[in-house]
Amino acid sequence: MESRFHQELDQLKLTILKMAALTETALEKGIHALFERDVEIADEVIRGDREINLLEIDVDKYCLRLLALDQPMARDLRFIIGCMKISVDLERIADQAVNVAERAIVLSQSPPLPRNPLMLELAETALDMVRCAISAFVQENVTQARDVCQLDDNADELNVTVLKNLLNYMVKEVPAVERSVQTIIVARCLERVADQATNIAESVIFIVQGMNIKHHCDQ
Amino acid sequence: MESRFHQELDQLKLTILKMAALTETALEKGIHALFERDVEIADEVIRGDREINLLEIDVDKYCLRLLALDQPMARDLRFIIGCMKISVDLERIADQAVNVAERAIVLSQSPPLPRNPLMLELAETALDMVRCAISAFVQENVTQARDVCQLDDNADELNVTVLKNLLNYMVKEVPAVERSVQTIIVARCLERVADQATNIAESVIFIVQGMNIKHHCDQ
Repeated sequence: MESRFHQELDQLKLTILKMAALTETALEKGIHALFERDVEIADEVIRGDREINLLEIDVDKYCLRLLALDQPMARDLRFIIGCMKISVDLERIADQAVNVAERAIVLSQSPPLPRNPLMLELAETALDMVRCAISAFVQENVTQARDVCQLDDNADELNVTVLKNLLNYMVKEVPAVERSVQTIIVARCLERVADQATNIAESVIFIVQGMNIKHHCDQ
Repeated sequence: MESRFHQELDQLKLTILKMAALTETALEKGIHALFERDVEIADEVIRGDREINLLEIDVDKYCLRLLALDQPMARDLRFIIGCMKISVDLERIADQAVNVAERAIVLSQSPPLPRNPLMLELAETALDMVRCAISAFVQENVTQARDVCQLDDNADELNVTVLKNLLNYMVKEVPAVERSVQTIIVARCLERVADQATNIAESVIFIVQGMNIKHHCDQ
């Protein structure tokens, strides 16, 4: 029979997985709302954020209880610390999904900007990084976690290019200034999502290997 | 004589205080560089970020060691967990200071925008919140920590107003489009600093009172 300690660790992992699933869905929906100009889906993302916030509080509570009552060592300790960090990053990704959804609502009220393939690529990169980071956590897969870290530079470059393109566009299309600025803000939100997915991947490497690769992920 | 455990707790606190001092200075300098168009100071902020990153890694190392070797309880446990969270927020504030400094360099290459008192107010609010959050940590002062949380709405509103004003301005002053967008990005960075100062204040309340007020700071 499993000990209470291991049951509680399992419960912690399940809570993170639930949070991860809701966060991934929120980001998918936020991006869908943006590109499809779907206000209803955007509203769903905004309304759904509360549940993710509450799960973050649950994760903190479980972790503190495990640390206080069971004085875990080595890998178990790293797992608990890693979960605390991952839950913060998931909650922030969900916040960015809300930001994207809010901008999607604003943008849906004016004519669409010309289709921008780089924005789509940035959105797909960010979403892909979140999915891979979650999968790396579930499978305790360090190789996959390192792949996520490698993708972060792509997201940064895409964000810079989107900014440059839109600055050029706005000067020629003054009536599109507000829409362009909202899109620049969305691009920055997506780039932040990529950073947070990288943080999650770093936490996975810390849990599995006990290594802190923060601030030199490519080494 | 103090136990090794308490010596290590003191070392942790000192490391956080060093990180906090460097972060506060980085933000001050980033804001100075922005308003005074001072590229040299902006460069200092960018170069100084590495030291803050390294301190974040040190904090993680000390916390993990304390948790693994000393199995702390109650207040000590909360202090260690709180320090881990605070160091993440300090590092992110320092990252925002770098962002502001980078934008300051870009902005210094074109003519200045008209003086914007709301941008100054936003910068001062963000800096004030960081200072108060650090002071609340040092003095374990819950009242001061709650004051920081209360200020967060001001920062949000200032950011929204700056965005609206600059959107109006850009439409009339097309040659100022790029400078205005860079300033909008700076405003968002400062608003993020305010969020992170709020996170630190929440961690102080958690350390002192054992209460998690995340996501309902005004209750």
